[in-house]
This record gives sequence, C-alpha cells and structure tokens, in this order.
Amino acid sequence: MFSVTVRDHMMIAHSFRGEVFGPAQRLHGATFVVDATFSRMELDSDGIVVDIGRATEELRGALGDLNYRNLDEVPELAGRNTTTEVLAQLIADRLAGSVEEGRLGPSAGGLAGIAVTLHESHIAWATYERTL
Amino acid sequence: MFSVTVRDHMMIAHSFRGEVFGPAQRLHGATFVVDATFSRMELDSDGIVVDIGRATEELRGALGDLNYRNLDEVPELAGRNTTTEVLAQLIADRLAGSVEEGRLGPSAGGLAGIAVTLHESHIAWATYERTL
Amino acid sequence: MFSVTVRDHMMIAHSFRGEVFGPAQRLHGATFVVDATFSRMELDSDGIVVDIGRATEELRGALGDLNYRNLDEVPELAGRNTTTEVLAQLIADRLAGSVEEGRLGPSAGGLAGIAVTLHESHIAWATYERTL
Amino acid sequence: MFSVTVRDHMMIAHSFRGEVFGPAQRLHGATFVVDATFSRMELDSDGIVVDIGRATEELRGALGDLNYRNLDEVPELAGRNTTTEVLAQLIADRLAGSVEEGRLGPSAGGLAGIAVTLHESHIAWATYERTL
Amino acid sequence: MFSVTVRDHMMIAHSFRGEVFGPAQRLHGATFVVDATFSRMELDSDGIVVDIGRATEELRGALGDLNYRNLDEVPELAGRNTTTEVLAQLIADRLAGSVEEGRLGPSAGGLAGIAVTLHESHIAWATYERTL
Amino acid sequence: MFSVTVRDHMMIAHSFRGEVFGPAQRLHGATFVVDATFSRMELDSDGIVVDIGRATEELRGALGDLNYRNLDEVPELAGRNTTTEVLAQLIADRLAGSVEEGRLGPSAGGLAGIAVTLHESHIAWATYERTL
Repeated sequence: MFSVTVRDHMMIAHSFRGEVFGPAQRLHGATFVVDATFSRMELDSDGIVVDIGRATEELRGALGDLNYRNLDEVPELAGRNTTTEVLAQLIADRLAGSVEEGRLGPSAGGLAGIAVTLHESHIAWATYERTL
Repeated sequence: MFSVTVRDHMMIAHSFRGEVFGPAQRLHGATFVVDATFSRMELDSDGIVVDIGRATEELRGALGDLNYRNLDEVPELAGRNTTTEVLAQLIADRLAGSVEEGRLGPSAGGLAGIAVTLHESHIAWATYERTL
Repeated sequence: MFSVTVRDHMMIAHSFRGEVFGPAQRLHGATFVVDATFSRMELDSDGIVVDIGRATEELRGALGDLNYRNLDEVPELAGRNTTTEVLAQLIADRLAGSVEEGRLGPSAGGLAGIAVTLHESHIAWATYERTL
Repeated sequence: MFSVTVRDHMMIAHSFRGEVFGPAQRLHGATFVVDATFSRMELDSDGIVVDIGRATEELRGALGDLNYRNLDEVPELAGRNTTTEVLAQLIADRLAGSVEEGRLGPSAGGLAGIAVTLHESHIAWATYERTL
Repeated sequence: MFSVTVRDHMMIAHSFRGEVFGPAQRLHGATFVVDATFSRMELDSDGIVVDIGRATEELRGALGDLNYRNLDEVPELAGRNTTTEVLAQLIADRLAGSVEEGRLGPSAGGLAGIAVTLHESHIAWATYERTL
Repeated sequence: MFSVTVRDHMMIAHSFRGEVFGPAQRLHGATFVVDATFSRMELDSDGIVVDIGRATEELRGALGDLNYRNLDEVPELAGRNTTTEVLAQLIADRLAGSVEEGRLGPSAGGLAGIAVTLHESHIAWATYERTL
C-alpha cells in the first residue's frame, strides 16, 4: 500500500454544547494543522499516488470556507458540535468528493482511501479515515 | 474509523539484560514522549471519540507510578526487560483497564482500539496497538 | 548565559481591525503553542535557572484567563489588536510580574530576561523578549 | 501488534519526466528524512521487535548508494521516476532483503511487515508498506 | 524586541568544491525548510512586526528562482559554494532588499533586523542574521 | 553573524539533591536531544561556519562518556546536580575544548561562540551559550 500526505492549516472560532466540553463550551478557537493522506494499492503510470500539486490545491479548497471563520455561524455546520473529529470527517468527505469529481486528475480513480488528521495542539490530534 | 490522540511524557531510569542491548545493559535512562490513541467506528452523541480531558487524566495516571522511577526497582516489572515496546504494551493495557472500569465515561464503551507510541528520541519510537 | 524554556498552549477566538489583516478581520481563532524562556548569567545554588515546576505553573497561570476565551471580550485587551506579537508581550510581562512578586522562588531574583514565543501554526510564530 | 521505527536521512538530486510534475521536471533535489518501521505480532524473547542497532545500520545501508547522488545517474533506477513513493518502496524492499538474509538477527524472522516513510518537506511525505 | 517568523521551503540540486565536503562534492540535493525572522523594537500602529501576508509572499519570491533548480547552473551563484550558510545569507539579503524597496509595506521601515534559518535535515541547520 | 547547528542525543540516568526537585530527587532518567550551535562573523574560505562532519563527530565525542550512564556515578560530575542546564554547560565547554585543540579544523579558529541546547522533553529544554 502506498500513501501520500500533504499538510495545510486553518484558524477558526467555535464553541461546543455539552457538559463534557467544560470550558470549551465558551466561544474560543483553534489552529488546526491538517494532514490529508491519499492511499492506493499500486502507483499510477507516473509513479505517484496522486498529483501532489492538485492534492494541495484541493486540500486548500476543502478548508477555504472554514478558514478565518466562526464555525458556529457556518450554515453547513448548524446544530453540530464542530469537534476535531467531526471536522476531520467533513474534510475527508470533501476530498472524497474532489476525487469523485475528477479534480485530482484521471488516475486518481485508483485511490483506495483518504485519511485526515487535524492537530489541535502539540499534545492532541484526531484522525478520520475512510475508503473511496 | 475515528481516532483521538493525547500526548504526555515520563522520565525513567532502567537497564536491560541481553547482549543485543550493548551499552544499554548499563543503568541509563530515557524520556518517553507518550502518545495514546483511542479509536472507534462512530462518534458518540457529543461528536467525539472520547472525553479528551478524561483521556489526558487517565494517560497521566497510567504513567504515574513509572515517572521519575528506576524501573529496575518497580515490582510489577521485575524480571522483564522494560524496553520501549514492553512499556508501550503496559501503558496500552492500563488504558484498556481505564475503559473497562468506566473511567473514560459511559460512551467510551464504544471504543474499538487503543494504540500507544513511546518516542525514546528524535530518531526512534515504538508502538503497541490492541483491540478493546 | 543560561536559559530554560517551558511550553504550554491556549485556544482562543479573536478578530482584528485594520485592512492589513485581510480575512483575519473576521472572528476566527487560534491555538497558540506558548514557549516561555527564562535566562540568567549564572545558575543558582541548585544548579538551575529557575524552578521548572513553578515556571510551568506560572506560565499556566499567565494563560489562564485567556484560554478558551473570545479575546474580543476580555476587558484588559479592549481596543487593542490581540496579534500574536501583542499576546507574546502580554504573557512575558505577566511572567515578569511573577518573578517580581516572588512566585518563581527566592533565587529567581537572579533572572536577567524573559522571552515568550507564540506559535500560531506550523509556518508562523512571534517572539517578544525583555529584560528583568 | 508491535512496531519499532528508526529515522535517518539522505540528500539526493533527481528530475522527473511527465507534465504532472511541472517545475520538478527540471534537475532539482531533496532531503528525504526516512522512517523505517518494523512490525510483528509478538515480541521476541528479549522483549523487542528488532535489534534497533542493526535496524539503524541496515537502514543506513539501504540509503548508502543513493545518498549524495544524482538519482538520474543510478543504473538501478534508470528509466523510472524516482518519486518519493517509488523511493519508499525501493527502501522497504531493500530492508525486506535485510530481514530475509538474516542481517537483522535470528529473531527477525518473526517480523510481519515493513513500512517506510520519506518526508520530502515539512508539508509532504509518502509511505509504502508491505508484508514480509 | 519583537520578532515574527514565517516558514517556506525549496528543493534544489547542487555540488560543492573542496575536500572538506567529502561525498557532498558530488551532485546531490536538498530540501531546505526556510525560516525568515523579522525583528523590531516596537510594534507598528496595527500591533504587528510586519504584514505576515506580505512577508510570506516576499519569502516565496526570494526562493522562487532557486526552487526546483540545479544551483550549479544559476548565474548569480557561479563560482561559489552554495552551502546552507551561503544560501541563508543570500535569502536574508534578498529580504532586506524587499524591505528597502517598500514591498513589505510602509511601516516595515521600522524593522531592525532579519535572520534566515535553513534546515537541511532533522539534524542540521544554519542561520544568518543581519541588521537593516 | 552565521551559525550552524548539529543534533545528536544521549540517554542517561541521574538523581538530584534539593527539595526544589520534588520527585526528581529519586533516581530517574532522561533522553537529551542535544543541539550544538557554532557561530562566527564571517564564513571561512569554503563558505562554511565549520566542517559539519567534524562538528558532528566532536558532538558525539562530547556525549560519549555520558551516554548510557548513571551520571550519579561519573567521577567528573561527583557532588553536582547534573541538571539540564549544568549538562548544557559541560557539553559546550567540551566543544570549546575541541575548537581550541584544533579538532574542528584549522579554520575553526574563526569561531566566535558556542551554544548548546538540551531538550529533556517536548515541553522543556535548556540552553547554555558562551564565547570562544
């Protein structure tokens, strides 16, 4: 199995509902350093997993409408806790859409899975992985 | 699959028995930067893998009686080489106990696995992963 | 010259005023990984720059009323852009207060300077350093 | 499952053929920070996955004829794009050879898999993993 | 004293002349992770050291004609060893030019110094710092 | 001013005397990731601060009789608290000796200073810097 990972980040505000979140129920924020991993069984004819330039652009695109936002006011996320886990899934699903719509190039059809890790600090991070 | 990781560390002394260990057969020590990863198939009703505050506390607890110790003198570890691998398993098993005893909260029953990585330096680390 | 650094972090929301900030004029947020460095010419009689336990506590204290907050609503910061640079200075000045008030222990009177670095992402950080 | 990882690096020049590579079709270069991970189900009688000293030596050996080279002129690699992915596979396969030839010690026969990650920058890396 | 640092990278090929360089006399390459630090005594009226967006653009610009190149063939560098130290100075001097030509904005005239660090691997880096 | 830094590490056991050290008065241990920085005003005729190969060897040599040791039993350190700060000074002074004795090469006479940083964990480190 091969995989390639690209890294970007976003800076957002949000708040959580639920006693389990303690002080994070208040409006606060986070820098999420985001790692997107694309995997496949065999390399394409160029010897790559995915066009790393396109992967970087699609990751940036997946973060674009979240970056520099208060997620409490993003309609797509209304009524949900935008935890690190939930955001990892959202971004992975968006990248899966990029693959399906051909924006990662023709050979990206051979991709088998996507994993997205969001680092919320130097001591905590979350990952969501899915098949394609 | 979702996962959440929290990081802590411990500083211990120990020695190894066996020629394979070379100079590490002498009494020496290590800082282990410890990453504990909890995984599950679906998020709980709060949108999380595990209460990150409790996970951090349980990890600290799992390291507590090892930290600032000479492991050669810890009764639970008597007669064993306390390699990075062995310690990763010990800590993962302790965290599995935390889950089973309910100390990670009621929804932690949905956890599927635990992985523990111990970084012994910037150029070497070991991981143990197990199901729950 | 000797120095010791301890690391902690905080997660905040804020917004900026001024065209130079572009999209960061919107309410957004950041995780700041905070490094506090204490320096002095000679070590104290214990062979240390500062009691690292107390330094860690004072750093945590210096971040306490900012962490999990919307800085736009913190009275002490009213009317100021809470840039990474401004926050580095605020935290360094608070730690200088800790030294002056004796909360870092009696030998901390020998400290010569404090520097505080706030990492806002994996590709940007800011530092403020001052004498004592 | 247990694993142990050791890290080394190499500094190479190369160029790629194919429009997908854009400016990287020109002769350029890379530092690859290389992580080699060895895994197995049970520890050996010393309580380890693999002799970490030998693993480090074998990794260094696997990089030896590539390091400080222009890969475009290495006969073994003629006619191939030496992408990060391709190099990860090459190094993993060489390490698999080390295991098979007994250079990682007698108990290394219990190893189940090898994964090799090449970090080409702080924002991109690739992994190849295989069974033994 | 305040400072702000931004990070980018470049991937180049080159070779060195001189016995001191050993195998690095051969054509090889490097990824340089580049940190550019701007410093000043007082913040500007926006509360910043420098417009971080412009700083990032200027750093990218300073690396532009070096990135994905064989430095042995860059006319500006002819006859020089393009060591990590030499490249750090080159980039710092280019950024000083950016400041002098006003490309970092009007308040950048208050900048006091620039430092550039090039990381050539996880175990080696070089810095050049200069006044403005 | 130019500088070059090389990184190595050592794994030691030790204990401290003094109430300020709390549980670290017990025999415990540490991995110290050690960064040695050499600085000078102008580069030598090869375009370097120091022969990085020799610098790496000398750093390894400076750590050699400490690595895999219980520092409480090293005669040179008898009666001293081997704090991170004290060890940073010891290693810097040893490297200064390397320079003075010519082991870093003839042009190393132009070196102006040495700084040594010991990272004891991901959240704490200490530095000692001196002139030559």
